[in-house]
Amino acid sequence: MTETRIDGFLDGRLRIAQPLRGYRSGADAVMLAAACPARPGQAVLELGCGAGVASLCLGWRVGELALSGLERQEDYATLARANATENGIPLEVLTGDLAAPPPALRTRAFDHVIMNPPYFLAGTAAPDRGRAEARQEETPLAAWVDAALRRLRSGGWLTLIQRADRLGAVIRALGDRAGALSILPVAARRDHPAGRVLLAARKGSRSPMRLLAPFVMHAERAHMRDGEDLTPGAADVLRNGAPIELINAKVS
Amino acid sequence: MTETRIDGFLDGRLRIAQPLRGYRSGADAVMLAAACPARPGQAVLELGCGAGVASLCLGWRVGELALSGLERQEDYATLARANATENGIPLEVLTGDLAAPPPALRTRAFDHVIMNPPYFLAGTAAPDRGRAEARQEETPLAAWVDAALRRLRSGGWLTLIQRADRLGAVIRALGDRAGALSILPVAARRDHPAGRVLLAARKGSRSPMRLLAPFVMHAERAHMRDGEDLTPGAADVLRNGAPIELINAKVS
Repeated sequence: MTETRIDGFLDGRLRIAQPLRGYRSGADAVMLAAACPARPGQAVLELGCGAGVASLCLGWRVGELALSGLERQEDYATLARANATENGIPLEVLTGDLAAPPPALRTRAFDHVIMNPPYFLAGTAAPDRGRAEARQEETPLAAWVDAALRRLRSGGWLTLIQRADRLGAVIRALGDRAGALSILPVAARRDHPAGRVLLAARKGSRSPMRLLAPFVMHAERAHMRDGEDLTPGAADVLRNGAPIELINAKVS
Repeated sequence: MTETRIDGFLDGRLRIAQPLRGYRSGADAVMLAAACPARPGQAVLELGCGAGVASLCLGWRVGELALSGLERQEDYATLARANATENGIPLEVLTGDLAAPPPALRTRAFDHVIMNPPYFLAGTAAPDRGRAEARQEETPLAAWVDAALRRLRSGGWLTLIQRADRLGAVIRALGDRAGALSILPVAARRDHPAGRVLLAARKGSRSPMRLLAPFVMHAERAHMRDGEDLTPGAADVLRNGAPIELINAKVS
């Protein structure tokens, strides 16, 4: 990896080196960490951990976790290990492909799996695009969901963040292998369609799904400068590392 | 059918006889009619039309529709025919089961299908209920979706309203036979989880799905008397027969 830059997360509480070019984690990774309902002492696996942003945010918020990350690209895995050390948060990083995980991972079952699968075709989803293209897109996401479910213990929770237009693909990939789905639409502004969804699902559960009130990122109608118009809830998550109550959200 | 009562819909613009006991349509049927994007001159089929509330609300809002309803129970079908005549809105009502539709229907293709499938297990969905029970529930909803897709022309729209916790089952039933899903969560109050979803899907389309900002029914935090605390949007739909822009909702 040629060049990296130190980015601050959680208002600078975490300082994480990321490549200048290529995939860089941002708010999505922080939101993912906030939504994982892990408790101290539990084992958590992040699929595709990149430079480790989500796992390290989670480790900052919840103590005494056994954190593991799987990353296909060796340079990102190396970065993630260094970032964990720099921030004093234990994180085991394994290198390997989620479709063919390393033997060290294949026999283990986790209490939680978290992931932020790549957003294929981001910004290029044309109306009525070709069937072949849609299929091509579907397969990888199903492979992510399948790998996650295989690594979870029965009753364990999968938490993921994904583009809102992929929600149907996620639900189809989960099939009847998980239940108790909690779906949190994430919208840029109050009356806007969701841009992202945060989703939690419990392996082996048959409980009904819930579609929660949206999590709204920005307070103002017109877009001002980045970070200046966050809602109090979004600011609390992104700056203070507050949790997002996905599975315990009150139904009143 | 033993006893009926005349209910007013759309602020009394429609007067519809419904049975005193048994299934009675209410706000859900009015919302369903409001969300159907039918244009004058198009053919619309309602599966399970009951006493005809949704079809008649739609016929009141959009002129020159060819409206048809399929109803399994003869007494409801008779009521629907009488209600159509009383309100001066042409509605053809066929008696038959959606899983084995009458021959008169089997060769026809519609521009729109609307439906409000029965909410199985309403109020009884226990956490982690048994697998057998969940399966029992799933089959009928899949049969409704299948029947709807069979009766649609390619490019035609299915519009349905359903309990929010059945959204996953609807998405799985649609599979890859429809696309361009627009999902509108319907919530009792602003920060509440959705109780219902309105969903539109286009037969044969591969367009991505959209998860819209919720439609909120009540304005006040505390529940006051029925009908006194509707949001302006809900009042406009339920009292004035205003449309709900499900498939043309702006993405700004």
